[in-house]
Amino acid sequence: MIAVQQIIEAPWLLTMAGSQKAPLQDCSIAIDHGKIIAIAPKGEIAAKYTATETVNLENHLLMPGLINGHNHAAMTLLRGYADDLPLMQWLEEHIWPAEKQWVDDEFVRDGSELAIAEMIKSGTTCFSDMYFYPEVTADCARTSGIRAQITFPIIDFPTPGTSGPDEAINKGLALFDAMRSIERIRIGFGPHAPYTVSDDVFTRIATLSAELDAPVQVHLHETQHEVDDAVTNRGERPIARLHQLGLLTPRTQCVHMTALNDDDIQLVKSSGASVIHCPESNLKLASGFCPTQHLLDEGINLGLGTDGAASNNDLDLFGELKTAALIAKAQARDASAMSAYDALYMATLGGAKALGIDHITGSLEVGKAADIIAIKLDAFNCYPAFNWVSLLAYTQISHLVSHVWVDGKALMRERRLTTLNESEIKHKAVQWQKRMQG
Amino acid sequence: MIAVQQIIEAPWLLTMAGSQKAPLQDCSIAIDHGKIIAIAPKGEIAAKYTATETVNLENHLLMPGLINGHNHAAMTLLRGYADDLPLMQWLEEHIWPAEKQWVDDEFVRDGSELAIAEMIKSGTTCFSDMYFYPEVTADCARTSGIRAQITFPIIDFPTPGTSGPDEAINKGLALFDAMRSIERIRIGFGPHAPYTVSDDVFTRIATLSAELDAPVQVHLHETQHEVDDAVTNRGERPIARLHQLGLLTPRTQCVHMTALNDDDIQLVKSSGASVIHCPESNLKLASGFCPTQHLLDEGINLGLGTDGAASNNDLDLFGELKTAALIAKAQARDASAMSAYDALYMATLGGAKALGIDHITGSLEVGKAADIIAIKLDAFNCYPAFNWVSLLAYTQISHLVSHVWVDGKALMRERRLTTLNESEIKHKAVQWQKRMQG
Repeated sequence: MIAVQQIIEAPWLLTMAGSQKAPLQDCSIAIDHGKIIAIAPKGEIAAKYTATETVNLENHLLMPGLINGHNHAAMTLLRGYADDLPLMQWLEEHIWPAEKQWVDDEFVRDGSELAIAEMIKSGTTCFSDMYFYPEVTADCARTSGIRAQITFPIIDFPTPGTSGPDEAINKGLALFDAMRSIERIRIGFGPHAPYTVSDDVFTRIATLSAELDAPVQVHLHETQHEVDDAVTNRGERPIARLHQLGLLTPRTQCVHMTALNDDDIQLVKSSGASVIHCPESNLKLASGFCPTQHLLDEGINLGLGTDGAASNNDLDLFGELKTAALIAKAQARDASAMSAYDALYMATLGGAKALGIDHITGSLEVGKAADIIAIKLDAFNCYPAFNWVSLLAYTQISHLVSHVWVDGKALMRERRLTTLNESEIKHKAVQWQKRMQG
Repeated sequence: MIAVQQIIEAPWLLTMAGSQKAPLQDCSIAIDHGKIIAIAPKGEIAAKYTATETVNLENHLLMPGLINGHNHAAMTLLRGYADDLPLMQWLEEHIWPAEKQWVDDEFVRDGSELAIAEMIKSGTTCFSDMYFYPEVTADCARTSGIRAQITFPIIDFPTPGTSGPDEAINKGLALFDAMRSIERIRIGFGPHAPYTVSDDVFTRIATLSAELDAPVQVHLHETQHEVDDAVTNRGERPIARLHQLGLLTPRTQCVHMTALNDDDIQLVKSSGASVIHCPESNLKLASGFCPTQHLLDEGINLGLGTDGAASNNDLDLFGELKTAALIAKAQARDASAMSAYDALYMATLGGAKALGIDHITGSLEVGKAADIIAIKLDAFNCYPAFNWVSLLAYTQISHLVSHVWVDGKALMRERRLTTLNESEIKHKAVQWQKRMQG
């Protein structure tokens, strides 16, 4: 018998790896030192391994935790602050003034903790962030136990916490160094968007990211308006400009990506960059449609993000992947576009590939981190269950996530968070609301 | 003191009536004989009324129960049976053969009970149905306590339970008479679609529905293909044909309504018919987009439906109204299109108007039935709460519905159903799954 820290048993297990697109039945996962040691039929695991803790979950399905590829976590504190408004009015008259008045390190800490709590509760084990005071969000991720890619925002003017792009980069590089020893937290570059970052700053980011092998995440082609403006003012489409500046590489994560023509798509394809699709934000702000099935057909890797809670308004990645699958079909005028499995892939292994961490997470495979969620499929909307993959993609199930592990550590058991104080997080959100409403 | 059966108290109350589009604070509802007797500040109600039962709900919001304007309830038993397939392949190769083999009165009973259970759990207090053995679904609605409009399907060929349109109409009229004394259950005509119902049958339905003042619900302009086919084969758009045949009246509920031109929209407008929007089904089957904001701008009344679970795959009307609001914005290219309130209206009072029962339900007003839901807004995604209406529309909250009353009778308390046997319903669904999987 081999001693391991943990065995998790459940009737269904969806690995999201290999060609097997249906769940395995009655398999167990053996976990040691945070890594998956074995996945095999329950009897085999029981015969070979002895565990400090065995978690037996009837009626549950195990799968990899979801990866939220684009978030502004602390913006949970602006959830519902301004809705049903056009993008620029929303930003210029509501979101930016509120951020200017209220965002400090305390705001970012309280908002990030609220976001992380909400994400864990809905089955997310890893998120990418881009927001002010990135060192605070990185620290929240570290202490909460969730996995994260924190991209520090870089923009051509002063922001809460920085005087401009130089300071943003310097502070970001210090954060990169400080977090180097923690595999669970990766630091990357977050140039805001082509219309807010100048050529020399982009060039510097391209150089530094190559030297450090660090990821770059950028809002790109969020609207047709952005593309048209760039063509008018610079005579160049934003993605072509980024390519010219050396910004498009396999380390690059292009967020939003509506308003794409064939040349744009070929540029992404040849560069090896990934696309992070944020369907609900794109719909809510009337930004446009990302041609996801077309991108999949071209072999481009897709991740999935909620964007910040101010433009969604929740961080429910299961809901997001349902929306992604549904609108892909309507947009492609083909009900077979973006299958349920494709949508789940985008929210798991596709996201891990985009973030450059698919050797660590995104699927349940021996050697990878034990980033696992258990879902108790016992609500009325889970019956009958002809097709588990369909059920996961097309039915509201995020509130049925019962357990969440990251690196083998339980962050939620039976829907109770283990590393975060639930009532304190809610209390702080109420305090912020009162303060902001004056 | 006036004696009443029930008082319900909660900190927030959204009536969906009048020009007040935000919740009232600290109000109570007094209920007697299933009707709302008074809505007033808590202290006033307590001073004036004495109740057999007082339900005090902290942290909850009260609002009218949702109205699912289009369903095929028993198709819950085909949830996930065939997904990611084009509409005609889905119907002809999967759904229709399965229905032919399996649908009998027992199937309809078990499927309808599963659907009703799922709907009550997610805050729906009234649904419209169109499916075989309508007398069985009507009976399930009657015994479960939910409100329903049951439209009996009429189609030009034999179906499970009928030999053709004549028998369907005769049986339907008998059901109409049998249910006449039960205000909670309304029977209407359900001619399937323009491409499956002949002129003489439509004409007969027009006459009978006028005589009986009974509603008519019809699938109409579900796809561009349907419209193009009709123009090719008959030289007429389907909606123009229905108008010619006298089928378009204020009693008519046009379901789906994609592929509309200006003439189509003017016909609906001048007829006083309502539109039932089914966004998730339209997206999943790649049917097209209903131009909802355009219809609203024309003053056309909209209801909202999930369609059957085989093309959704859940019956979550809160999820549906989020989808409706999001895609309306993208389609109109205007983030201010279909506001959160508009979406909630479509799922409540708009639905009641479509079904011709807005004098009975759809809003919380004195004299209307006590069709009320309570939502416990205490999950992380409910914080902060700058805007309750946004929160209800844009955040996954259906699983937070805690109590449901119809005609003042509690159908769910603290998430336990009171009129349906939860484990038996699930057990039967599993039995059907096993039988169908062979």
